Amino acid sequence: MTGELVELALRDLAEGRILQLCDALTELHPAEIADLLEGMPPEKRRATWDLVPEDTRGDVLAYVHDEARAALIDEMDQRELVTAAEQMDDEDLAEVLEELPADVTELILAALEEDHRQRIEAVLGYPDDSAGRLMSTDVVSVRSDVTLAVVLRWLRRHHQLPPHTDALMVLSDERRYQGKLAMADLVTNDPDLLVADVMKPQAETVLAGATAREVAALFERRDLVSVAVLDDEDRLLGRITIDDVVDIIREEADRTLLARAGLEQEEDLFAPVLPSAKRRSVWLGINLVTVFLAAWVIGRFEEVLDKIVALAVLMPVVASMGGIAGTQTLTLTIRGLALDQIAASNVRWLTIKEILVGILNGVAWASVVALVAYLWFHSIGIAGVIAAAMVLNLLAASASGVAIPLILERLGIDPALSGAVILTTVTDVVGFLSFLGLASLFLS
Amino acid sequence: MTGELVELALRDLAEGRILQLCDALTELHPAEIADLLEGMPPEKRRATWDLVPEDTRGDVLAYVHDEARAALIDEMDQRELVTAAEQMDDEDLAEVLEELPADVTELILAALEEDHRQRIEAVLGYPDDSAGRLMSTDVVSVRSDVTLAVVLRWLRRHHQLPPHTDALMVLSDERRYQGKLAMADLVTNDPDLLVADVMKPQAETVLAGATAREVAALFERRDLVSVAVLDDEDRLLGRITIDDVVDIIREEADRTLLARAGLEQEEDLFAPVLPSAKRRSVWLGINLVTVFLAAWVIGRFEEVLDKIVALAVLMPVVASMGGIAGTQTLTLTIRGLALDQIAASNVRWLTIKEILVGILNGVAWASVVALVAYLWFHSIGIAGVIAAAMVLNLLAASASGVAIPLILERLGIDPALSGAVILTTVTDVVGFLSFLGLASLFLS
Repeated sequence: MTGELVELALRDLAEGRILQLCDALTELHPAEIADLLEGMPPEKRRATWDLVPEDTRGDVLAYVHDEARAALIDEMDQRELVTAAEQMDDEDLAEVLEELPADVTELILAALEEDHRQRIEAVLGYPDDSAGRLMSTDVVSVRSDVTLAVVLRWLRRHHQLPPHTDALMVLSDERRYQGKLAMADLVTNDPDLLVADVMKPQAETVLAGATAREVAALFERRDLVSVAVLDDEDRLLGRITIDDVVDIIREEADRTLLARAGLEQEEDLFAPVLPSAKRRSVWLGINLVTVFLAAWVIGRFEEVLDKIVALAVLMPVVASMGGIAGTQTLTLTIRGLALDQIAASNVRWLTIKEILVGILNGVAWASVVALVAYLWFHSIGIAGVIAAAMVLNLLAASASGVAIPLILERLGIDPALSGAVILTTVTDVVGFLSFLGLASLFLS
Repeated sequence: MTGELVELALRDLAEGRILQLCDALTELHPAEIADLLEGMPPEKRRATWDLVPEDTRGDVLAYVHDEARAALIDEMDQRELVTAAEQMDDEDLAEVLEELPADVTELILAALEEDHRQRIEAVLGYPDDSAGRLMSTDVVSVRSDVTLAVVLRWLRRHHQLPPHTDALMVLSDERRYQGKLAMADLVTNDPDLLVADVMKPQAETVLAGATAREVAALFERRDLVSVAVLDDEDRLLGRITIDDVVDIIREEADRTLLARAGLEQEEDLFAPVLPSAKRRSVWLGINLVTVFLAAWVIGRFEEVLDKIVALAVLMPVVASMGGIAGTQTLTLTIRGLALDQIAASNVRWLTIKEILVGILNGVAWASVVALVAYLWFHSIGIAGVIAAAMVLNLLAASASGVAIPLILERLGIDPALSGAVILTTVTDVVGFLSFLGLASLFLS
């Protein structure tokens, strides 16, 4: 669907049908405009951004990913930025402001109305990725000592509820949180009952300092639509809604996937060539160090390689199979850590199990490899050495597949980012070392 | 948090504190029991499952992942299965039944009450991963020609709403969908107004045949909490809620991540050794074929390898750097496809950009590699050959990083599953071929 939109928009641009494109843009949802912009090469994106109506730009910016957003903001002058800022939700604006240069942030904050500015500054006071940063301060609250009829009458005068209001917050006089009044309970109960009689006093809440991941886990486990955010003294600060949680889940999945390839979370498929090359270069550099380490190991065995050239032909097999088996164990262990399934009491069981899996598959595939090697090079010695090396490497692979993420986690390093490089370094080194080492012991 | 629970439960089991564990289990949310069970080795899981109160087993089964669920169901006799089935939501039960042997499914269906059975059979009639399969049939609907006061009175008599009811469905006499009456509009408007006056006739809906991915995209784009599922003639069939969508998103992310390592979606970290080894073995076998292809390529150059042993030492560098650069492009392209950002009109731009990125990084790192190779082996020839091979391989890597997922997608194969193997096969083959080929042309 986005694909078609991009297609149509690019054609309109190419053929100069500007008015038509403008019309199309006014009819799209801001999230759809955001998808459209992200699917465009830089100059086309700039041209299209100029056509987005000013009064929806704030909403669009809220939906666009970090890197693409930075590029769009670069195109805007200060007046446009302030207009966009005024339309945005507190939490979205806070996110955008954080990425702008400090002087631009100052200017925009100064241009906002006093209470708006104060709310934004409060949100900015919480650490990134915390509940305080995710919450919206737009909350409807009631007291517990009134009847449902009073609440309903008040709501009819108020005439608007923030999106995703599945419950009203019940507060004491000092704004302390007492529970929630579910909309379902409000409409299904006798209007003469007191709020105190139908509210849920045990409702789930989160502290402003809770991490985004903890918040997401709570929503998923309890199937929530919204949750109250409290300070240390039970005072209501705001509310987090399911749409923010969906974004958190999406972004975390995205980050994990990209991290595997050494890419940053907000990598933009349509970023210009130079910044892309520069960003990806770092990962290539890290990999170069590890692969030279493997080359150095091979270099230690020049003598035996010189004598038996078949070893050079077969050595990638041992290293590669270890890498694959290790990556399987590593992936499952990282996932187990993310799901919080791994505890001190089951690590031993898990390690033994993975090592057994490694040995079983090592023996099975070592036999196949040995047979192929024998048929190819007609040497029982080479077949025996490669089989032994493969079993050793798959053993090392499964042990490090469990150990590496656990150690990284303990060191406070995200295993999803660097686990795979370290693992393949281990399997390359062990693979070459065992194969060439055994060969130089027994074959030369 | 789950980690601590697992810890405590395993200790209770080990020290025979069965009553204590039973008490703990009655206090946990079914989702938490599910997490706890998944974090346990097989025998402990079985022992704990026996202690889970019968009246929550259905709910727990709904939260457990496929493979662990199959293991738990294996432990239950027919009577227990029927009891659990009676507690489950239609969509959850349909999912569980699908994985049971046909005769067990028949028995359970026969044991259910007539209308329950009919509902389940209707859900099972829709294809897996479709909106029809995800929907719940538990929907509250109203007519458009009554006042809000009538609706409220009716709700108070009805006294219960299904979870996540953010809107009531407005239906015509023939059950045709006319729009939705948001709970927020119900409580904020004058009770004397007609439903027709305040309902949203343009509300988002999905067809029963829509894919889970399309449904998730709609929820995300429009920040929905629930959506009506209709048949081809606008008749209301059921309702999909945000909690199901959160599960879809989670599962899709999980599947993508595991697929990279050739693992199945529902791989259970605590599955027994033999099934684990067998499942992972397939992927190792596929990889073995590709790595033997690379070995065969190397084998074509035995002559030059025999003369210049330095080539054997350096050849993994060329192959590995190509693999890393290609994986980066591949990851971004697969992500772009998943986000539907890639259309016919921008493929050219994207391909050229990725190739330029590949050449830039190729030239940059080729210089470094050439320098190291020269310092190591004191040969301008080897340095020149490895530099040229690296540029060629990074060029091939970025071109195939874009092309492979696009071709796989067109062939109807999920690029997340097989893209990486095909890519590294290409970068290994091109890497060895260009390095050893250039060497045999210019150095021997």
